[in-house]
Amino acid sequence: MLETFFTPQSVAVVGASRDVEKLGYAVLNNIIISGFAGKIYPINPKADEILDLKAYPSVLDVPDPIDLAVIVIPARFVLAALEECGQKKIPSVVVISAGFREAGREGLEQEMELIKIAQKHNIRLIGPNCLGIINTNVNLNATFAAGMPPGGPIAFMSQSGALGTAVLDMAMAGRIGFSKFVSLGNKADVSEIDLMAAWGEDENSRVILMYVEGVPAGQLFIETAKKITRKKPVVAIKSGVTASGSRAVSSHTGSLAGSEAAYKAAFNQAGIIRAASMEALFDYARAFAYQPPLKGDRIAIVTNAGGPGILATDALERDGLQIPRLSRETTEKLMAKLPGAASAANPVDVLGDALADRFEFALQEVLNDPKVDGVIVIVTPQAMTEIEATAHAVGRLSKKADKPILGCFMGESRINAGIDALWEYGVPNYPYPERAADALAAMSAYRKEQERRIFGVVPIDVDKEPVRELFDRVLDEGRVSIGDAEAWEVLKAYGFNVPRSRLAATPEEAVDIAEEFGYPVVMKIASPDILHKTDVGGVKVNLRSPGDVRDAFDLMIYRAGRYVPGARVWGCQVQEMVHGGREVLLGMSRDPQFGPLVAFGLGGIYVEALKDVSFRVAPFSPREADEMIREIRAYRLLEGVRGEPPSDHMAMVDALLRISQLVTDFPEIVELDINPLMVFEEGRGAMAIDMRLVCLNR
Amino acid sequence: MLETFFTPQSVAVVGASRDVEKLGYAVLNNIIISGFAGKIYPINPKADEILDLKAYPSVLDVPDPIDLAVIVIPARFVLAALEECGQKKIPSVVVISAGFREAGREGLEQEMELIKIAQKHNIRLIGPNCLGIINTNVNLNATFAAGMPPGGPIAFMSQSGALGTAVLDMAMAGRIGFSKFVSLGNKADVSEIDLMAAWGEDENSRVILMYVEGVPAGQLFIETAKKITRKKPVVAIKSGVTASGSRAVSSHTGSLAGSEAAYKAAFNQAGIIRAASMEALFDYARAFAYQPPLKGDRIAIVTNAGGPGILATDALERDGLQIPRLSRETTEKLMAKLPGAASAANPVDVLGDALADRFEFALQEVLNDPKVDGVIVIVTPQAMTEIEATAHAVGRLSKKADKPILGCFMGESRINAGIDALWEYGVPNYPYPERAADALAAMSAYRKEQERRIFGVVPIDVDKEPVRELFDRVLDEGRVSIGDAEAWEVLKAYGFNVPRSRLAATPEEAVDIAEEFGYPVVMKIASPDILHKTDVGGVKVNLRSPGDVRDAFDLMIYRAGRYVPGARVWGCQVQEMVHGGREVLLGMSRDPQFGPLVAFGLGGIYVEALKDVSFRVAPFSPREADEMIREIRAYRLLEGVRGEPPSDHMAMVDALLRISQLVTDFPEIVELDINPLMVFEEGRGAMAIDMRLVCLNR
Repeated sequence: MLETFFTPQSVAVVGASRDVEKLGYAVLNNIIISGFAGKIYPINPKADEILDLKAYPSVLDVPDPIDLAVIVIPARFVLAALEECGQKKIPSVVVISAGFREAGREGLEQEMELIKIAQKHNIRLIGPNCLGIINTNVNLNATFAAGMPPGGPIAFMSQSGALGTAVLDMAMAGRIGFSKFVSLGNKADVSEIDLMAAWGEDENSRVILMYVEGVPAGQLFIETAKKITRKKPVVAIKSGVTASGSRAVSSHTGSLAGSEAAYKAAFNQAGIIRAASMEALFDYARAFAYQPPLKGDRIAIVTNAGGPGILATDALERDGLQIPRLSRETTEKLMAKLPGAASAANPVDVLGDALADRFEFALQEVLNDPKVDGVIVIVTPQAMTEIEATAHAVGRLSKKADKPILGCFMGESRINAGIDALWEYGVPNYPYPERAADALAAMSAYRKEQERRIFGVVPIDVDKEPVRELFDRVLDEGRVSIGDAEAWEVLKAYGFNVPRSRLAATPEEAVDIAEEFGYPVVMKIASPDILHKTDVGGVKVNLRSPGDVRDAFDLMIYRAGRYVPGARVWGCQVQEMVHGGREVLLGMSRDPQFGPLVAFGLGGIYVEALKDVSFRVAPFSPREADEMIREIRAYRLLEGVRGEPPSDHMAMVDALLRISQLVTDFPEIVELDINPLMVFEEGRGAMAIDMRLVCLNR
Repeated sequence: MLETFFTPQSVAVVGASRDVEKLGYAVLNNIIISGFAGKIYPINPKADEILDLKAYPSVLDVPDPIDLAVIVIPARFVLAALEECGQKKIPSVVVISAGFREAGREGLEQEMELIKIAQKHNIRLIGPNCLGIINTNVNLNATFAAGMPPGGPIAFMSQSGALGTAVLDMAMAGRIGFSKFVSLGNKADVSEIDLMAAWGEDENSRVILMYVEGVPAGQLFIETAKKITRKKPVVAIKSGVTASGSRAVSSHTGSLAGSEAAYKAAFNQAGIIRAASMEALFDYARAFAYQPPLKGDRIAIVTNAGGPGILATDALERDGLQIPRLSRETTEKLMAKLPGAASAANPVDVLGDALADRFEFALQEVLNDPKVDGVIVIVTPQAMTEIEATAHAVGRLSKKADKPILGCFMGESRINAGIDALWEYGVPNYPYPERAADALAAMSAYRKEQERRIFGVVPIDVDKEPVRELFDRVLDEGRVSIGDAEAWEVLKAYGFNVPRSRLAATPEEAVDIAEEFGYPVVMKIASPDILHKTDVGGVKVNLRSPGDVRDAFDLMIYRAGRYVPGARVWGCQVQEMVHGGREVLLGMSRDPQFGPLVAFGLGGIYVEALKDVSFRVAPFSPREADEMIREIRAYRLLEGVRGEPPSDHMAMVDALLRISQLVTDFPEIVELDINPLMVFEEGRGAMAIDMRLVCLNR
């Protein structure tokens, strides 16, 4: 995929220039000096030769085939140039030029034209409005950035070109290396999804990084990322996290869900590691790219200083990693050789006067310990510390080890030579213990992600047909919401337990039904035009006698007409009253990017006041439903507190999966709340008491 | 305070050596080469001259007075050397030598001796087991570290010497400067408290940093820090945060409070800014030390790149800062001069082709805007970016500005020269936008801290005497807990409302009391030996008739005897039943470091299952009590949700202050829970329903 972008045999630079001030010069010059081995064709109607290469007026004049064209001319000429690329059958085009979507309405129209031309000719297109692309593996630097980053196993994509320049400038200083680098620009065609898919197959890329502002085609993004993150880690930083989308919402779920909640859920499900900052992005990347996987959560610390050892311990614990007791053999060996004042426990304190050999001995023993999965080596520059020799010793052991070793050589002036020496062996250094701990935590998160992947989405056997017919009917009638009885048809078809319930058109019918169900009963106004029944006094519970039922019926009918004039009122729904469970809320709202976002929370104040809700994008697996339930802060209440029995966990998982399937099967469902789902004690199941559902008006 | 440590006229190095491998050489050499202008006396019985200075066998042989002695000889000789320092009337001694408390029991005994000698001679002592001290203001480097850090306005103290070496090595690379540096070691005498007090007065120190593992004299620490943080920021990193103390506890509060909770509360009350990592510690320090205070929370961003601008916005919002709309004047001026594609809104995007002059213009306008309190300037190294010239422009404006400006020049290779240029003007640079945002957030936290200081601890008029007598009685009887009736005596004396309640020795008495109070009533077993009454069926609520009361009495007496054989049973407490409030818990447990740690939370599951509790060290101010209430996650429930009225906020504040005073007045109270305090709606007060109290057995 996208091979002709990254390993082209030939590259044309449309807009190549002799003027060193022009981007067309920078791009051509970069391709030449980076050492690209394929053919290079400067395209410029006003020159015969540029930078010692024969120039052509148009790509159409080049006698041989061209794999990749880089367009770097003013926006108004780009469409014609792309058309020529199409005629020349160039499969891959990078449009560096700006002045499109980002420049307003006219630019957007130009970009739409660009897309049309690309589609017509089957051209894959990166950009416009980008910095270009780099593949260090074939020495291709098709950007206008100042210089080529060192090669390495990290593939990086950025929606922001300027951020890309900063990243490249950072890389140029060493201690990080890239396989691929792509500035995505406006993403008129090629997006994160294409690059992930391509780089998933790329043997030269051990980790994929992305700076994302927004993703297209949310569901496809998740699907693709799920496959890729199985093979290699994808680390992302998502900007715009606090920007809250302002949409009109009519459900709890809708008001709780926001763009950030959707991204959080989607990245989680896709197995993408989320970095909270740019710094974390590259901290994690270096650990993933240069060290073997972390196969467990047990971390040892080898240090020549107590304080930083404690800081590392704190950070590891905070991150949920373990600082295990070392095995007896290891402890004994350490005690036998280390000075008496040293600590042979974990953290292993080799003392301030440790020379390189003592570090090497301790690290070797710790690595040999089967109870250790990864190591942080902390070196402070004390009077006698052999900084470089220690770094070489750590590096040598790292080359042989199948466990990750992260350096924490602290300081700058004297310590820098040690950091460089470590880097020769691919041991990344973190200037502070907390950052090394966080990087290991990211490695642990990735491993856990891999482990949970054995569980996939499981289709549930449901009866879609009645629901299909119901929606057809509702939409034919021009309604966007459904009534109680209809909601229960849906819930029953999808295998939910619901209380017995029947519509009564008159008070007498209501009494008959109540007698049949047995008292007490619940009554609700039945009207397709009244969504928030409680607001108009349209719900009465605990009705204990025929008199109660009659009074409730008349009162609700009267109030419905008074508060919602013109509402269609079908009567009242009489419902069996359910006791003794815990109320939870299941809901769904549609995220513009990712589609159906399913919410879970405890009912009542937990959702409304405390906003204690978890989200996943549907469809999701049983494992994900399980995590969703455990994720809420109030989860302990579901486990049973104060001697209460635990709530039926599998019934909640089951209900979430059924909702997941329902909203996947019926994209016309825009929002829904099951509130409450009454969950009984372990083994006794759950019952959907009330549902509100809004569907799309065709 | 401590003047002779930091500005001595003369320094003796006890253990000065010619052997370059020895610490005694390093220390003497450092004092000489750092350019210290006072007199220097090497002390060594085996040399006449060291490093061209006349050496003396003992400090007693030095003809002139000595202000400061630095002892760097093997531990076994230190006591004698210190005794001689005492005889010589040296006021300040730094003991670098290790081999004391940290080396086991024998070392601890040696250290106790050290303290005795120091006290006898009125010597103030830093160490032992430390790296030494530095005062760049008088060019004094009395450490064995490799080199002297650049001067600057940051005073740094560290309990860990090794961490100190790393910090000095980092400083040596530039871009940070220290006024004072102290490695505290074992803190046999001088502690964080003394240094804070001294540096609070030091005009050369604008910010105080500390690396703390544990503090002595918690209450004095808080008192001192409160005074100092009024004058200048104190930023601390506390290690060992996740280490949980294992103490036997019998109350909710005790089991919820831990060492971390106490430190969090104490640092908060002391006004100390807490850094979550070493990196954050120095990030904050540079902002505080080199930039003017942040006078409000409105931050502008000037950037040549969209992506990093969004990252900065995200981070600022996450940190609770504002990204205001700029004033109309500013916007108009920006629009008039910036290119059409630029953004004149906040973040101000000057575009990728911005030269230094465009940055300067935009920054100047933004600084002039009265709606802006601080600025982050983001520079990515794009093709045309004038990195150094931009840095100089930013620096020049910073010199004139009374608002903080933080740099975020992103990259390394090309960008480094710009960062150095910024530093010439004292503009700190942060490599990623998130770190700049976090530094501003720390500045904001400090300002808010200053603002809240107008409120102090207010003594409440209470009647201590009956409580004093009660405790005397309880302790005389050899009890450690008190009964219900006694608890109410205490509560009433401290001005709490309590339900009417009386002890009944017989069922008949119980009925009489119930009739007097009116039904329903609550009954509780009255026994000083039964703390957890509900566990033995010793609480009955909602008793509605004489029959109920009689049954409850007999049943409780029977069960008490059966479940707690030998318990002294006084009868049953009959109590008015209180309705309609919200249950909160007030509690106190004694922290070994900080003393009385008061807890606040909602009653029931919120405290037990959700651990939603806030803490403060008593005594605290009304403002702190107020914050304590607002701090819990479930605070919204107290504000009133679902149409419920808000709970009486001032009644809770009042109750917290009374508890604060009670536990301060009576140090013999070890643990107490008021659970529940029933809080009624706004204006209706609160009532303490039940209290458990454990006191110290003398």
